[in-house]
Parts: sequence; structure tokens; C-alpha cells
Amino acid sequence: MSLTFPVGEFQVRLARAQAAMKKAGLGAILLTTEPEFRYFSGFLTRFWESPSRPWFLVIPASGAPVAVIPSIGEVLMRRTWVTDIRTWAAPDPVDDGVTLLADTLREIGGPVGVPSGAEMPLRMPLRDYARMQALCGQAFRDDADIVAGLRAIKSEAEVARIKTTCGVANRAFDRMGEIAREGEPISSVFRNFQRLLLEEGADWVPYISGGAGPDGYDDVISPASDAPLRAGDVMMLDTGAVVDGYFCDFDRNFAITRASDVARHAHAQLIDATQAAFEAARPGARACDVFAAMEAITGGGEGAGRLGHGLGMQLTEGLSLSARDQSEIKAGMVLTLEPGIETTPGRLMVHEENIIVREAGNERLSRFAGPELPVL
Amino acid sequence: MSLTFPVGEFQVRLARAQAAMKKAGLGAILLTTEPEFRYFSGFLTRFWESPSRPWFLVIPASGAPVAVIPSIGEVLMRRTWVTDIRTWAAPDPVDDGVTLLADTLREIGGPVGVPSGAEMPLRMPLRDYARMQALCGQAFRDDADIVAGLRAIKSEAEVARIKTTCGVANRAFDRMGEIAREGEPISSVFRNFQRLLLEEGADWVPYISGGAGPDGYDDVISPASDAPLRAGDVMMLDTGAVVDGYFCDFDRNFAITRASDVARHAHAQLIDATQAAFEAARPGARACDVFAAMEAITGGGEGAGRLGHGLGMQLTEGLSLSARDQSEIKAGMVLTLEPGIETTPGRLMVHEENIIVREAGNERLSRFAGPELPVL
Repeated sequence: MSLTFPVGEFQVRLARAQAAMKKAGLGAILLTTEPEFRYFSGFLTRFWESPSRPWFLVIPASGAPVAVIPSIGEVLMRRTWVTDIRTWAAPDPVDDGVTLLADTLREIGGPVGVPSGAEMPLRMPLRDYARMQALCGQAFRDDADIVAGLRAIKSEAEVARIKTTCGVANRAFDRMGEIAREGEPISSVFRNFQRLLLEEGADWVPYISGGAGPDGYDDVISPASDAPLRAGDVMMLDTGAVVDGYFCDFDRNFAITRASDVARHAHAQLIDATQAAFEAARPGARACDVFAAMEAITGGGEGAGRLGHGLGMQLTEGLSLSARDQSEIKAGMVLTLEPGIETTPGRLMVHEENIIVREAGNERLSRFAGPELPVL
Repeated sequence: MSLTFPVGEFQVRLARAQAAMKKAGLGAILLTTEPEFRYFSGFLTRFWESPSRPWFLVIPASGAPVAVIPSIGEVLMRRTWVTDIRTWAAPDPVDDGVTLLADTLREIGGPVGVPSGAEMPLRMPLRDYARMQALCGQAFRDDADIVAGLRAIKSEAEVARIKTTCGVANRAFDRMGEIAREGEPISSVFRNFQRLLLEEGADWVPYISGGAGPDGYDDVISPASDAPLRAGDVMMLDTGAVVDGYFCDFDRNFAITRASDVARHAHAQLIDATQAAFEAARPGARACDVFAAMEAITGGGEGAGRLGHGLGMQLTEGLSLSARDQSEIKAGMVLTLEPGIETTPGRLMVHEENIIVREAGNERLSRFAGPELPVL
């Protein structure tokens, strides 16, 4: 059996879910999305990149999870701790797991909770969902946010994974001088940065982004252009690399050839804001308090909507460090601290680090950058 | 303006959608998923890796598409041909675009078609979807499969993209001798293969898979293990690399140090089956006919459910080459031909190539492998 974690990890997750289900009066929870499916099963594969087949995991009110999956997943599923595995030959244009899932839910009993909040869309066709609901004759409702609540608090085994992934990115960022310099197209830097992450131990690199421009960049989600880096540019690279199914998510800024006073000052402010957030993100504080601690230094408002978020099996998950998010910060949360600052009209700089919140004192998972903007 | 295609490409897509909407009696189509959103807008970013924010594109019965998006996407969206861009500061725990989308749909008018078939899940929380439907007061139904139908037939511009991506993988496979040999852990081969794909021009590598074992492998979706390759193993690597937002999806088999007669014979049969499929996949044939052409040679049944599928903006999309799929093969479809064969009990070999179906004769997009199993 090859598992992402020892069986005990999954048993604890299941027991916690079932305790919450009892309180919420749920007979089952139906999961259709990759992180949720993996959280309870340990089923880790890049095959979710193919959108063609639905996958289902049913968490019963008592007893072990039941996997209702395409037959292509059976061999791998048998390597997890899940033993009740029901398969069909997917994709089936007539009945793509609908009857098998309906039968399973009828057998297990309802009400069936389906995650219905942020970040957990229903990963099955709406048409099939409606047919399945009618077939199985159980009551459906939301999952009372049980799954999101469990996932928000990381185990030490999960924290160790994220720390490993952060280490990969630390080492790749250390090598930036090998791939980025004046005259190099940023598209080539993007490509080579992914190569460095792989060389340093990433299993894969689902996400990178970045930008470059004089004293900052105008956007952080655009694809890389073929324009060459120029002296005086500030270049930012951000990565979500993955090792063993867990992400890091942090960035670094670099000045090309020379750093202006504006860029250097902005960078120092971003580092100050990150440190303020590190101190503010204590158990019992609210997400908006951590936001406020950053905003007091950068004065930048929310920039692109928030100044940090949860992190784990997904690049972004859980709460948002924003003025609007009242969520309580709890021990066991892994967070990104991501202040932003407007350097000149229409140009910004952002900085990001990863931490774990602990009762005894927060811990840095990424190696925090110093106040001095590095020059390449 | 930086677009993935000239504006004319998007105008044609929109006009075709609107002609079909008129027939189906739809006032609007609501899109929430990355490929569909990009198909009509040209909005290309890796930021979809973050599940936190919903994104909406509304195709009206007449007039231009309307983007209802998180403010973080505004700068990039202004570089596309979409001009009606409505933003909110996402994520918003109270109203995450729900009111803005409902207002937009009320203004545009219904009935609103929502893709509800295979591969197009609703990428927004179910709770928000229900609230948005109630708020906007329009009728909702499925999109009569209009979007899937359009996407299945590729333009020449799209085919050119896929061909470019196939070229990247061709060149990376040519270099396999640099990274794979007896004694090398397959996890290291996986990592280095991604590096080769990047070096050969991939923008990113969303998907690779593979397997290795004596005369074949027992699974094609498991993560790579640290076990070393051994003499007599057959190793398969499969990639979905991406250039400019379009995938390739094909694989190659290699024998390590020596090739057994069983493996060599199986490989030759797979190549024969691929050729038979290439000849069978003609306009007017059905998907199941192409399946039958392969199965007649390999005798392997459907293996993991199908022996090929459509390809484009997604690793797998559209029809399945399976006994159950009666879909008509049409000119303009890009397909993977993916026969499988059982070599010994519990072990299989699979092979895969990419083609474009044309009236005047099908064309190879990947450089088809020869019958001889290469030995590393």
C-alpha cells in the first residue's frame, strides 16, 4: 500500500468529519473535487487534469469511505486505505456513474451533504446531478461547511509537506541569477524558473506568475511576454510548486541591473508589512485584523482583493486576509502573507511569504526575504 | 491588445454560438469554466489554478460578450477583445459576484443556458448559484450542448497551435536517452521529462504520466515511484504539455537495456492499431467505429474505458473512442488515437498519437512512432 500519509492520518480526518456530521444530522457527504477526495482517501494523481470523468467519494455517517470511481482509477485506489471501491467504465455517454452513485447513496442513506461554499464547485455535470438526485431518493443539502472547516486546520504531517515544498522554492529563488538578467525575455525566465523548481525537487509546477516593469508591474496574472528585461525593471516571480500533493505559494522581487529608490523603499515597506502580519496572525485574531496590520504600513488597500489566504492542497484555500473577512485565525492554519503597494500610478509591487499559525508562536515556512531588494 | 488569436477568430465563434442560440431559443449563455471562458474571450492565464474566485462570461443572444469578473483580472481582460467588463473585489465572503451577475443576466435577458453536460461542471458554489438564480428572475436551462458542439470542431488557427505543442513533445521524446536508463528512478525521469518539455518550448506542463515494468505497467495514472528502472522494463511516458493554451497528448514507450519479444510484438501491434484508427477516423464514421478498428488488432477491449478522445484547450475533451460512443467523426476534430494491449496478466502497454480529421485526408499532428520499440 502506498499512501501519501500513514493510515492514522486518514482515520483522524474521518472521525472528525463523522463527529461533525452527527451534529449536523447528515447521513453522508458526497465529494466530487480533487482536494476533498484526496483529503479523505489519499488518492493522489495528476489525472484530474482530464475533465472527462467524474470521481465520487462518499463519507458515511459511520464506517469507512466508499469510492465510486472510473475503472481507470482502480489500481491506484487499491493502494490507498479505501477498501470499498465501486467502478464503472467511464466515460459512459449514457450513464456516467449516475446509477452506481445513486445506488450507493441509497444504500448509505441521507440526508446527503454536498459542499456548496467557496472553492468547492460540484465536479459533475449538472444534468447528471439532477438525474442522480432523482434516482437515489435521498434528501440533499449543503455539507454545513464541515469539509472546509476540517481542511482549514492542518496536521503536523501536512505542515511538514508544505515546509518541504517551500524549501524547493527557496532554493529555486536562490538561483535566480542563473536565469534572469537585463536583456533576457521574461517568457524565458518563466520557463527556466519552472525548470529550476523541478531541479530543486518539485514534483510539478501547477502555477507560476510574475511581472516586470520600471518600479513595478501593472498586473500579476498575465502570461509572460517575450519583451526583454530592462535595467531598472522590478521583476516579480510567484510560484505554486507541488511536492507530494502540497503547495507552496510565495514570491520574490528582484531589481534588474539597478534598483531605484522608489522600488527599494517599496520593498522595505512590503517586508515590514509582512512582519507585521506575521505578528498579527495569532490564534483568536480575525482575518481582517491581519489585513489591517499590513494595510497600516502599505496604505495600499486590498489591491487585487486580499493580502493573503490559506494554503495547502490548493494554491489558495480557506480564508482571505481582507477587510471583509471576519474569519477567526486558528492554530494549525497555514497562511500566505501577501502585502501589495502602489509604487507609481498603475504600478504595484507585491510580496508573499508562508507561515503556520501555532499557539506557541507562529513559524515561518518560507525563508523570509530581507528588506534589501536584491539586484540581478 | 494582446490576444491569443486575431479578433476575427472570436467573432466567428460568437456568431456561430448566437446562430445556435437563436435556434435553441436562448437569451444568454452563462460560462464559468476556464476553456469555455477562454474560447469566447481569449482570456489566457494560469490564475485559474486558484479556486477561490469565480469568473463569469455571458454570451448574449446578440451583441458582444460581457465579462463579470474579479477585479484582479481587469488589466488582463482589457487586453482581450472583450470591452464590457464588470468587476467586483473578490473574494467577497458575503456577495462573491452574485448580485453583479444576477443584475447582468437580468439586463441581458433569458432564458439562460448553462453548460450541463460532460466536462463542463458549474464552477461556482452551488449555494451562490441558487441565490443568483433567485435574484435574477430568469429561466435557467442547459445550453443545448451548443458550447461543446462548437469547441469540438477546431479552426485552422487552433490546429496550428496544437501542432506546435505536439512539436515540443516530439523533440522532448527525442531526448529521452539523456534522462532515462537502467538504474534511474522513474521519479527522476518524470521530473526531467518535464524539464525537457520546458526546454523544448512548453509554456507549462500540466500533465505527465507514465509507468514502467517488465513487459508493461500495471497502471497509467499513478504518481512516479522512486524505484529504479530495470533491464527488461518497458517504460511509458505520456504528456499533456501546453503552448499558448493548447495541449498535445501523446505518449512513447521505451525498453530499458533490452526489449523482450513480448514487448516488441505488443508495440508493433499498437502501431498497427494506431494506423488502422488513423484510416478509420474519417468524416461520417462514428467514434465506436474507430474504436472497433483498433480493438480488431489489439483484442484488448476498452482497457481503461476508451482508446482515444478529443484534444484541444483541454488534455481530454469531446468524444470517446469507445464501444459506447456513437458520436459522428467530423472534419476539424483533433483526436488522440490511444490503443492499449494486455501483454501479460495485469500488465499493459498503451500507445498514443494525435491527428486532425480533414475532408481531404487526415493529418498527423504528432510525429507517429515506428513499429520498432526503441531501446534505451
